[in-house]
Amino acid sequence: MLIPVRKAVLAHNDAEAAENAKLFEGRRVRVVNVMASPGAGKTSLILALAKRLPTGLQPLVIEGDVASSIDTEKVAAAGIPVCQINTDGDCHLDAGSVRRAFESLPAVQEHGLLFIENIGNLICPAEFDLGEDIRLVIASVPEGDDKPRKYPAIFALADGIVLNKTDLVGHVEFDRTRFEAGVRAVNDRAPIFDVTCRGAATGIDALVDWLVVNHEKARPQ
Amino acid sequence: MLIPVRKAVLAHNDAEAAENAKLFEGRRVRVVNVMASPGAGKTSLILALAKRLPTGLQPLVIEGDVASSIDTEKVAAAGIPVCQINTDGDCHLDAGSVRRAFESLPAVQEHGLLFIENIGNLICPAEFDLGEDIRLVIASVPEGDDKPRKYPAIFALADGIVLNKTDLVGHVEFDRTRFEAGVRAVNDRAPIFDVTCRGAATGIDALVDWLVVNHEKARPQ
Repeated sequence: MLIPVRKAVLAHNDAEAAENAKLFEGRRVRVVNVMASPGAGKTSLILALAKRLPTGLQPLVIEGDVASSIDTEKVAAAGIPVCQINTDGDCHLDAGSVRRAFESLPAVQEHGLLFIENIGNLICPAEFDLGEDIRLVIASVPEGDDKPRKYPAIFALADGIVLNKTDLVGHVEFDRTRFEAGVRAVNDRAPIFDVTCRGAATGIDALVDWLVVNHEKARPQ
Repeated sequence: MLIPVRKAVLAHNDAEAAENAKLFEGRRVRVVNVMASPGAGKTSLILALAKRLPTGLQPLVIEGDVASSIDTEKVAAAGIPVCQINTDGDCHLDAGSVRRAFESLPAVQEHGLLFIENIGNLICPAEFDLGEDIRLVIASVPEGDDKPRKYPAIFALADGIVLNKTDLVGHVEFDRTRFEAGVRAVNDRAPIFDVTCRGAATGIDALVDWLVVNHEKARPQ
């Protein structure tokens, strides 16, 4: 009984995601779906990226959380237009809620880069297309090097992968070679960006360059 | 349409969980459902606890993962009877799969303490009773102090909470007072155990004592 219902839910979401993609394209907004475990550093990374975007490219943020508006407050404090989605128990964002959040962003959404911070979860968000251009999956060093082998679906669909909290290498057990081999077992195309957002953040510029190039390439304007 | 299906799934699981509880009681096995984010240190904690159990109390482990048998190999290497469940995409364990795994453990399951390592996920496992006696939720320092506010349901139902990787305090931003306030906003009864499993592990003995006392109390033998 569950399988047909699940298929119907996913088909409905896919149709809404296709509508989103058209809407984003019409507004010249390119969209990054940011997926990771709880506490992998999604918000810190988005803030670090947003402040390094080229002039004229408006950063926009949609924050997804089961509960609370902690992250939205941080993003708003940085002067970035942001809208919070609280799923109240749901374990992923869906295209319809992203559409409504986008429409209620407190800014004219033209020629921007929209970061959608998905729910902290390495499983369920993989199934729900949001109409994004780029799927960015963040892993963090203290989570361990085995995450790609344990959660292969989300690493398989990533367009880009961030290894965050590299300042903690040496303080925890983490084998960078083993991590990359785990990624490559399921994904041979996504670049891996090693970054830290603490102190003098490193690795962020290369990621911004890639996002912007990807942004320009994704659908020529 | 989804809501009646969801209710039926949960009701079916609850019925199977009640059966599990009877089975576990009959075998004098007390059961700890270990829930946490990916990479919070569930397996390391289970290994640290298992080797400190009082004589005569057999440790048993069921490992839940979307994919891979990495954790099961670690547990088996420590000489502990273990069975792997791979959910192949499902984001939580359910009572039926736990029952089947329990029956196939390579040991006589009598007078034991069974650790069920749930899928790495702070959301979905909260809804699925497995027939356990004790719900143990692990948070880890590098995930940040805001997790109880962002994932309140799982912290609300915890019987005990572990704050793991305390060796990383000082290397990351983490306010212990803020963490505890977040827990207490939703749960005023669960003790919080500060532990690290690295190097000379600390805090484990207090947790073993509590589990064993809780174990004896839960259903007098």
